[in-house]
Amino acid sequence: MHIDLLFTPVATNELFFRDKNVVVIDVLRASTSIVTALKNGAREVIPVESVENAVKVSGSLFGDVVLRCGEREGKIIPGFNLGNSPYEYTQDAVQNKSLIFTSTNGSFAMVKAKFARQIIIAAFVNIATVVDYLVDLNEDFVILCAGKEHLFCIEDAVCGGMIIQQIEKKIADIQRTDAAVAAQVLYKHFGRSIHKMLRNSEHGEYLISIGFEEDLKACATVDNVPVLPVYEKGVIKLRRAETTASN
Amino acid sequence: MHIDLLFTPVATNELFFRDKNVVVIDVLRASTSIVTALKNGAREVIPVESVENAVKVSGSLFGDVVLRCGEREGKIIPGFNLGNSPYEYTQDAVQNKSLIFTSTNGSFAMVKAKFARQIIIAAFVNIATVVDYLVDLNEDFVILCAGKEHLFCIEDAVCGGMIIQQIEKKIADIQRTDAAVAAQVLYKHFGRSIHKMLRNSEHGEYLISIGFEEDLKACATVDNVPVLPVYEKGVIKLRRAETTASN
Repeated sequence: MHIDLLFTPVATNELFFRDKNVVVIDVLRASTSIVTALKNGAREVIPVESVENAVKVSGSLFGDVVLRCGEREGKIIPGFNLGNSPYEYTQDAVQNKSLIFTSTNGSFAMVKAKFARQIIIAAFVNIATVVDYLVDLNEDFVILCAGKEHLFCIEDAVCGGMIIQQIEKKIADIQRTDAAVAAQVLYKHFGRSIHKMLRNSEHGEYLISIGFEEDLKACATVDNVPVLPVYEKGVIKLRRAETTASN
Repeated sequence: MHIDLLFTPVATNELFFRDKNVVVIDVLRASTSIVTALKNGAREVIPVESVENAVKVSGSLFGDVVLRCGEREGKIIPGFNLGNSPYEYTQDAVQNKSLIFTSTNGSFAMVKAKFARQIIIAAFVNIATVVDYLVDLNEDFVILCAGKEHLFCIEDAVCGGMIIQQIEKKIADIQRTDAAVAAQVLYKHFGRSIHKMLRNSEHGEYLISIGFEEDLKACATVDNVPVLPVYEKGVIKLRRAETTASN
C-alpha cells in the first residue's frame, strides 16, 4: 500500500487526483462539521467553492429543504442559515436537509479533488471509521490536507499522520512519501494532546479570538462521530451501508 | 522575532516575499552546490528558471568566464559545463567564473523570492554561518524550502527546522507559524542522523539510483563550508565582508 499526503491542495492540479482514493481533512472545522451534520441526519452536503455558487446552487429551494452553510474568516456568511461550527449542525437544524456548504479551505480542497475515484471526508471525530475503511479497501491512497489559505496547517497534518500511524499497525507493507512520513512524525509528537495542539495552532488561536473556543473541544474529540462521509458526483453522503443501517 | 516557513515555493505568489528576509534551502543539491561553488572562488552564481534562459543569459561568453550549470531529473543538462553535484564545483572548475545555474527546484525557489529585501542561501554545510547572521540581524524572516516539484520534501524541512532550533537557543522571544513549529519537530526527530534521513528521503533514494550516492554525504555534512551566499539584483555572491576577508 502506497500512502501519499499533501499538506495543501494548491501544490497540485485537479487531474493529479484522477482515479485515486483521496481522504480530505479539514479538522478546523469543515470536516468535523460535515461529519457531524451527516451523523445528525442531513440528507447530503454539497461543497462549493464560492459564496456566489452557494447562492446559485441553492436557488429557490433556499430555506426550505436546502440550507446555505459555511464561513468566511471563520464567521457565518451574511444571510446563510448555518456557519462552520460543529455545534450548529444539530439534528433539529439539519435532519433531511440538503446543505450547500462553502468554507475557505475545506470545500476548496474537496472540489479540487473531484476527479478522484472516491473521496472520503475525515477528521479526528471519525478517524477509526476512516482507518477501518482504508484497511478493508487495501489500496493506495492520498491524504489531502485542506491547510489554511493554501499553506500548511498543523492540525490537518497531525490528523493525517494519525491515520497513517493507525494503518501502519494493521498493514505490514506500506510505502510512504516524504510528506506522509513527516505527518506521522508530527502525530507522534502532538498526538498526546490533540486539544492542546489545536489551542496552540495558528487557526485555533484565531478561532479562540473570535469566540469559538468550545469548537476546539468538539474538533479534538476522537471517534465520537463514527460515520464515513463519501463525496461523489458532487454530493457528500454517508456511505450506503451505513445510511441503511442507521435508518 | 517572527519566523515563517514555506515547505514549497508554489503556495505563495512572488509579492509575498516583498521586503522580507528570506532564507532559501535546497539541500539536495542546489543550495549545497552553490555554497560550495562560492567557497571555491566562483565570482558569482546567477540562478535562472529555465534551460533556455541559461543559454540566453550566458550568450557568447559561454565557456570562457561563464559556465552553464545545473540539472534536469538530477542529471547534467546536455551541453552544459557542470551538473548539480557539489563535487563538481571545485576550485579548478569554478574560480573566477560566473555560473549560470538552473535546477528543477532550487533556482525556481530563488527566482520566486526575488522581491525579497534579502535572500540568503542555506544548506547543512553552512548552517551555523546562516544562523549567526540571522541572530545578528535580529529581524523577522521566512525560510523558503525549495521542495520537490512543487511538493514537500523532508530534507529541506529538516534543515529549516535546524535553523529555527539553533536560533531558539540564542533568542528568547520568537514566534513561529505552524509550519515553522512542524519543521522544528521534524529536525528534532531526524537531526541525529542527517545522512540517514537523506538516504531515506524520496529524492535521496532517487539520487542513489542514478549514481549520486556520494553526494548525499557531502550534502549531509554540517558546517564544513562556512560562507554566506546572498542573492541580490539577480546574482548570488558571498556577503561582502566575507569576500574581503577571504581575498
